[in-house]
Amino acid sequence: MSKDVEQQFRELIKKISNYNEAIGVLAWDLRTGAPKKGVDQRSEVLGTLSSEVFRLSTSQEMKQYIKELRAETVWGSLDDVTQGAVLECEKDLLKLEKIPEKEYSEYVILTAKAESIWAEAKDAADFTLFQPYLEKIVEFNRKYVEWVGYETNKYNTLLDDYEPGLTVDIIDDVFGQLKDEIVPLLKEVTSSSYQPKTDFLFEHFPKENQEKLSIDILKSMQYDFEAGRLDTTVHPFAIGLNPGDVRVTTKYDEKDFRTAVFGTIHEGGHALYEQNIDKKYVGTPLCTGTSMGIHESQSLFWENFVGRNKAFWEKHYDKLKSFSSGQFDRVTLEEFYDGINVAGPSFIRIEADEMTYSLHIILRYELEKALINGELEVKDLPKAWNDKMEELLGIRPSNDAEGVLQDVHWSGGSFGYFPSYALGYVYAAQLKSAMDKDIPHFEQLLSEGNLTPIKEWLTEKVHKHGKSKKPLQILKDVTSEGVNAKHLIQYLKTKYHSVYKL
Amino acid sequence: MSKDVEQQFRELIKKISNYNEAIGVLAWDLRTGAPKKGVDQRSEVLGTLSSEVFRLSTSQEMKQYIKELRAETVWGSLDDVTQGAVLECEKDLLKLEKIPEKEYSEYVILTAKAESIWAEAKDAADFTLFQPYLEKIVEFNRKYVEWVGYETNKYNTLLDDYEPGLTVDIIDDVFGQLKDEIVPLLKEVTSSSYQPKTDFLFEHFPKENQEKLSIDILKSMQYDFEAGRLDTTVHPFAIGLNPGDVRVTTKYDEKDFRTAVFGTIHEGGHALYEQNIDKKYVGTPLCTGTSMGIHESQSLFWENFVGRNKAFWEKHYDKLKSFSSGQFDRVTLEEFYDGINVAGPSFIRIEADEMTYSLHIILRYELEKALINGELEVKDLPKAWNDKMEELLGIRPSNDAEGVLQDVHWSGGSFGYFPSYALGYVYAAQLKSAMDKDIPHFEQLLSEGNLTPIKEWLTEKVHKHGKSKKPLQILKDVTSEGVNAKHLIQYLKTKYHSVYKL
Repeated sequence: MSKDVEQQFRELIKKISNYNEAIGVLAWDLRTGAPKKGVDQRSEVLGTLSSEVFRLSTSQEMKQYIKELRAETVWGSLDDVTQGAVLECEKDLLKLEKIPEKEYSEYVILTAKAESIWAEAKDAADFTLFQPYLEKIVEFNRKYVEWVGYETNKYNTLLDDYEPGLTVDIIDDVFGQLKDEIVPLLKEVTSSSYQPKTDFLFEHFPKENQEKLSIDILKSMQYDFEAGRLDTTVHPFAIGLNPGDVRVTTKYDEKDFRTAVFGTIHEGGHALYEQNIDKKYVGTPLCTGTSMGIHESQSLFWENFVGRNKAFWEKHYDKLKSFSSGQFDRVTLEEFYDGINVAGPSFIRIEADEMTYSLHIILRYELEKALINGELEVKDLPKAWNDKMEELLGIRPSNDAEGVLQDVHWSGGSFGYFPSYALGYVYAAQLKSAMDKDIPHFEQLLSEGNLTPIKEWLTEKVHKHGKSKKPLQILKDVTSEGVNAKHLIQYLKTKYHSVYKL
Repeated sequence: MSKDVEQQFRELIKKISNYNEAIGVLAWDLRTGAPKKGVDQRSEVLGTLSSEVFRLSTSQEMKQYIKELRAETVWGSLDDVTQGAVLECEKDLLKLEKIPEKEYSEYVILTAKAESIWAEAKDAADFTLFQPYLEKIVEFNRKYVEWVGYETNKYNTLLDDYEPGLTVDIIDDVFGQLKDEIVPLLKEVTSSSYQPKTDFLFEHFPKENQEKLSIDILKSMQYDFEAGRLDTTVHPFAIGLNPGDVRVTTKYDEKDFRTAVFGTIHEGGHALYEQNIDKKYVGTPLCTGTSMGIHESQSLFWENFVGRNKAFWEKHYDKLKSFSSGQFDRVTLEEFYDGINVAGPSFIRIEADEMTYSLHIILRYELEKALINGELEVKDLPKAWNDKMEELLGIRPSNDAEGVLQDVHWSGGSFGYFPSYALGYVYAAQLKSAMDKDIPHFEQLLSEGNLTPIKEWLTEKVHKHGKSKKPLQILKDVTSEGVNAKHLIQYLKTKYHSVYKL
């Protein structure tokens, strides 16, 4: 009996997965040059496919299959992939069922519209244009928490969508430690008598050569170009359509080569994760990264622990020089290393260095938590933002565009997402400490340009499991710890004391 | 009552149309650089979406709606778009109902895979690699004819999918006339004492400049870049996803600029058709070109009657010179014109000149007709191909890559498609004769670079109607004739007698 149901269930989730892959291709296409006059009609296509995914995920068949497969007599006979997939579908179903369909579809329309309103408001640097939309979005998310239910803190329900297992308690503790250590470290750095030279960062670097360099670096990271491609976009991203098709985009700024080089390494880190998920998960909801935070740990591991490591540039600096227009000719490797690790307060999150980045995230986390718990109202956001920016980074935005309006996330209703970015830093540092035990000659590998053992270690510990292990399970299996901020703090202190000769 | 059914019907065909658009984006993506390791999985996604289209097109709802809307009391109250859509869906339904669903979805997967096998076989110039796939594809098409039924000749059923209204009888007559006139014309031309100079065609023309020139020419044709984009592919094509997103691809050969220039004009002609379909047809099966032959008439009109016209180059020759590396500096416009119109026997269809092109098509038509009628087997194709090539063009391929393996079409199961190409020439010449009455100063417009009236005439007579008028109806409305080979024959004789000073 059960075999039959199991097979029908697998066919249903394969179908859902195929729809999601089509949605992924359409999304990639929209972001890589789809003609603007076709966008409205394309949105309707996306709507049709998304509705179908919703319908299948909450269908009577799905409910029936889950019920039958969860029966004690059947459960034990299922393979681990099916078990994991059933649990994933059950979790989704329990949430989706509780959302009133009418309010949900109104919300979908609202957020679809809100992104362009946000963009207009940002261009005008005027929060009040976006405010009425954001109020409705926050209102929906507050209601969502009530519908779905919550434990201890309302924000936990939203966190669970992006970082299952993480709670406000854990994050308050971790982010508290980061704040306590990074805020003073930032002061040390900004007041250091030594400040890295940076003028060479901003000289003309031809786009074609940046592209060649990006491809070279992706190849050395073991990114598989037969299972991916590199394109250019305004907002770089990586997208896993299936493990054989994981695409990376980047952006070439001829006045700052770092955008492309570190952006490509970052997205390449995301892509390695998706390319190396065990094929047995294809066609199930387990065939993706397990959480936004673990995903970000992979991109940040490559961007910072590899790409901003001096040993990496011992191998790659000559190549960089040969591709450049000569701006590095009189810059030593040490000066170059210090220059690409310059740190300091700045307004814009996506331009922040690896030391201050977490502070930008903590700011958003604290505001989101207060909003969802009803302790802050949308109309008061701009002032709250600026106050917190001053408290954490010591600077105050002069307008909403460089403050509260800078990120797209809230216009799409992505509350609970931001913490993943800082958790990614914390996880990456924890993984690095664990890797040090298995690969003590890490820096030597970088200086030899042999990144294969590093990629293989990450595949073995993280990538191959897809979504079959939850974030905390991965941490436990790999580091024998829970979330622990100390590794990141120690890394940042050591690194920035060295860069700033403190 | 009927309004309600009409609306439900329109929603259903809108949904089908949305799925087809998604399929179109995925197909475009597969042909413009999708990573090869993802192709198998992507084929399954296409299978899922195609099955859904099949399911919706043959659903109880569809049958019920058609039945109710076709009722005499209702029919008259429907608008013309709905009426056209109902007839289109009814026609599809009558066919699709007869195809077993399982065999259909297996066939979709088979043809998705067969394309890459064909490509490998072509690279290896070894037909036997492709043969087992082609056998299954031909087998399906033979069964398809049996399932759907046929009149007079089995091949008519396949023709009807690409060129509704055309039959083997009509085509035998038209192609017979072409063969009777072109084979001797080809002999006249090859034995003429005057042969155009062509050395300058094959000198280095930088790729970037070819791209700029291609964009320039597309713009002058009134191709709307806000509703499209230009990419590069091995096998150029145009695809209409919706009238706001109609994409063109081309290929740059630095040793032969004609590939890009005339290829881009050709695909641009297809694209103009799709960009200018009346918006009222969006979301219905009428929102596409009415047949492959009429489509080809548009691309060939632009490629040959415009792009290979001396008056066109009176305007564009200086620009071409400025983009080139200097190979035209000592070539007069007359020499250039003769050079780009050089004709003679050749192996590869897509490189054939406009005189011999139809002979390449007649070869394929005769082989397909024999295959479908069981008078020829797949294993005997290579020899049959080579024999016919010798009969029609007087040359014999030395291997399968320059013979039977050269075209992608059969790998996708497109039997019945090839005749459209030659019909496109015939139609284009008929349209040109009709246009001459309305636009007697055609050549003057070309020499002034004012292509707008030409594009507008074609939009008015052909483009805007989408699939709401059948091919023979368009011919009748625009030319007051049926299919008539005489216009093309007269055009070719006049042109090549002039080029070859005969």
